[in-house]
Amino acid sequence: MADVMAVTRHTSIAPIDGGITAPTGFRSAALHCGIKAKAGALDLAVLAVDTFASMAGLFTTNLAQAAPVLVSKRHLDVTRGTGCAIVVNSGCANACTGEEGLANARRMTEEVASALGCEPEQVLVASTGVIGVALPIDRVVAGIQEACSSLAHRKGSEAAQAIMTTDPFPKEHAVRVTTPRGSFSIGAMAKGSGMIEPNMATMLGFIATDAQVAPAMLHRALAESARDTFNAITVDGECSTNDSLFAMASGNSGVVIDEELYPALLDGLLSVSRPLALGIVRGGEGATKVIAVSVYDANTVDEARQVARTIANSPLVKTAVHGADPNWGRIVAAAGRAGVRFDMQRVTVRIGGILLFENGLPHDESAARAAEILKRDTVDIEISLGAGNASATIWGCDLSAEYVRINGEYRT
Amino acid sequence: MADVMAVTRHTSIAPIDGGITAPTGFRSAALHCGIKAKAGALDLAVLAVDTFASMAGLFTTNLAQAAPVLVSKRHLDVTRGTGCAIVVNSGCANACTGEEGLANARRMTEEVASALGCEPEQVLVASTGVIGVALPIDRVVAGIQEACSSLAHRKGSEAAQAIMTTDPFPKEHAVRVTTPRGSFSIGAMAKGSGMIEPNMATMLGFIATDAQVAPAMLHRALAESARDTFNAITVDGECSTNDSLFAMASGNSGVVIDEELYPALLDGLLSVSRPLALGIVRGGEGATKVIAVSVYDANTVDEARQVARTIANSPLVKTAVHGADPNWGRIVAAAGRAGVRFDMQRVTVRIGGILLFENGLPHDESAARAAEILKRDTVDIEISLGAGNASATIWGCDLSAEYVRINGEYRT
Repeated sequence: MADVMAVTRHTSIAPIDGGITAPTGFRSAALHCGIKAKAGALDLAVLAVDTFASMAGLFTTNLAQAAPVLVSKRHLDVTRGTGCAIVVNSGCANACTGEEGLANARRMTEEVASALGCEPEQVLVASTGVIGVALPIDRVVAGIQEACSSLAHRKGSEAAQAIMTTDPFPKEHAVRVTTPRGSFSIGAMAKGSGMIEPNMATMLGFIATDAQVAPAMLHRALAESARDTFNAITVDGECSTNDSLFAMASGNSGVVIDEELYPALLDGLLSVSRPLALGIVRGGEGATKVIAVSVYDANTVDEARQVARTIANSPLVKTAVHGADPNWGRIVAAAGRAGVRFDMQRVTVRIGGILLFENGLPHDESAARAAEILKRDTVDIEISLGAGNASATIWGCDLSAEYVRINGEYRT
Repeated sequence: MADVMAVTRHTSIAPIDGGITAPTGFRSAALHCGIKAKAGALDLAVLAVDTFASMAGLFTTNLAQAAPVLVSKRHLDVTRGTGCAIVVNSGCANACTGEEGLANARRMTEEVASALGCEPEQVLVASTGVIGVALPIDRVVAGIQEACSSLAHRKGSEAAQAIMTTDPFPKEHAVRVTTPRGSFSIGAMAKGSGMIEPNMATMLGFIATDAQVAPAMLHRALAESARDTFNAITVDGECSTNDSLFAMASGNSGVVIDEELYPALLDGLLSVSRPLALGIVRGGEGATKVIAVSVYDANTVDEARQVARTIANSPLVKTAVHGADPNWGRIVAAAGRAGVRFDMQRVTVRIGGILLFENGLPHDESAARAAEILKRDTVDIEISLGAGNASATIWGCDLSAEYVRINGEYRT
């Protein structure tokens, strides 16, 4: 533990340019292959490692898993977490597409492998867009061949655009992590949901690092960092068929991540994941505000998360925040139905730091000040359960009429 | 079992007028006591039994339980399910109001008891409205005194209006149950219409019958009938602080409900509860359509209910139905995240009887016909899990911009 503290104290993290290709050893290409109808709209990206990388993936827990999810999971199993590339398309989720969909997802990995000179199992695949529509596989194959012949370093921004569906803005971030034993970089990009193609709020995330990390440790760090970032956000409580989060470690920096440097890797992953996760919330369909719901003094972290998630997904809390109504009663009611036991008499509720509920009683004299705070574009809701020492934060967004408009318009 | 079948076969149920006061032995009064700001808006009702009645109650499972819930539960315990009256106010939930709130709820029962000549414990109390605001108890007490002096038979409709908050219409229903051993009546009223996923929700329901039923059997029948009616609906997945469903049996008809006649009582309760529960959904905040989600071929009823509830509460399914989009992909994705294990390849999805998903593949050629059906004001969504023989139905409603408007502006 002493070593860990020393490393943490002597590690610094600074933002850098370059997105997913900021770390050395990664190249990317992005182009319009013709999945999206709009001419020139980027809809295909290939990320390639110069040599080989440790790979890790986290996937949707939905029973309905898209073909690319099934194929990528299998490939990670077969290679035990090593690989050379990831291919991603937007505009079509390749979900609920049966055997043809699985064949198309495999075909995408085969084409990349053939172009790069590796095995198909060393290629991962991700798709995002409309459910239940077949990929125009000939166009995708032609696009993959073109992309693989034009891979370049430092072209991460195009890739971040190529994975967007209805996202109002691209989401990428990169940092340099400086440790007592050398420095390495981490770059990342992600996509969420937006406004024009209202089918599935499919989250995809990609992280690259030039640290040298064994696959098992990379998976552990990815899972740990996702817990408090990508897995701590909600736009509408919906879990999609395609959610995937990938990490790749090229090792090019020469910095070997062992138990001593693990905290530095984890901090780095958190540093790139947090802004991307918040970006997904801020760009959530119809969202006008980010809501950070923090639950303190719970018995366990799981209970804190459960209460925070119930509040963040409550349509009555979300509409109250949208209307700048400091309606602590809805927060208390949502906490009370979260399925966690606690003593309501010991609960306190704060909005933007202003105490609104304590000892079972309201402080409505502060409501006007809280209403002012609710007009900001980020709102903090804090609840103490007065039970234990555990805490958790979930980031959500408000519910607006625009969400209804986006998702109520027919696909045709 | 033979007796039960015979009774069921020879029992007929017919709708009658009169709402909650249709059965003999019940009187009611309703008036504006001044909780609601709008002049003349009914906000107080008293229901009284001519002599004494068996009483039963079901209450919210929310940890945050309003003062009237706590008081009514205690009174039912003390009297072991007997009583003489119920007092209800709208416009103020008397929830999160501390000791003062408890004292006010008790005071309401004391005033009724004093006016009617019974014990306070023989009076139940319910409140609905804004959370965290104290009752204007002096006005309420004056109102109770006036109401108790003007109790009358056949005035159920005014009571059904007096319990409304954001409900767009009053909800009451009554039936005459004719059995081989005589006939009795059941009358009922309920209110919605936001914070509705009754377990129970800001749902209040009241049922009166002139059958003669022991308290334990009345409670059993009430719980059994609620499972597939008031506890099978959802407007927004929110479980409120005040949900209460009361039943009173005066015995005035002389028909004694024993095990043989229990099915007739249960059928009667279902007959009045079903239209009220559906009325709550149809009058749900911002609702324009009722959605009946039926899950078939599940392993257990609980699993069928869990899948149906997840679909009925999915904001993406609710907005798709609002926009008349036959978006089976969202239905499949919601089913897949419900926390129930099944084989997605065996799932079928139908909207309005039209098959849209089977063997893991879409039937999009039928989408246009399904879109037409979605324009109706009641929509059936049917999912077979292909696993077992259990089934369940949950009734929900669509999500509209009006829901956002209502709840973004409720207090401010």
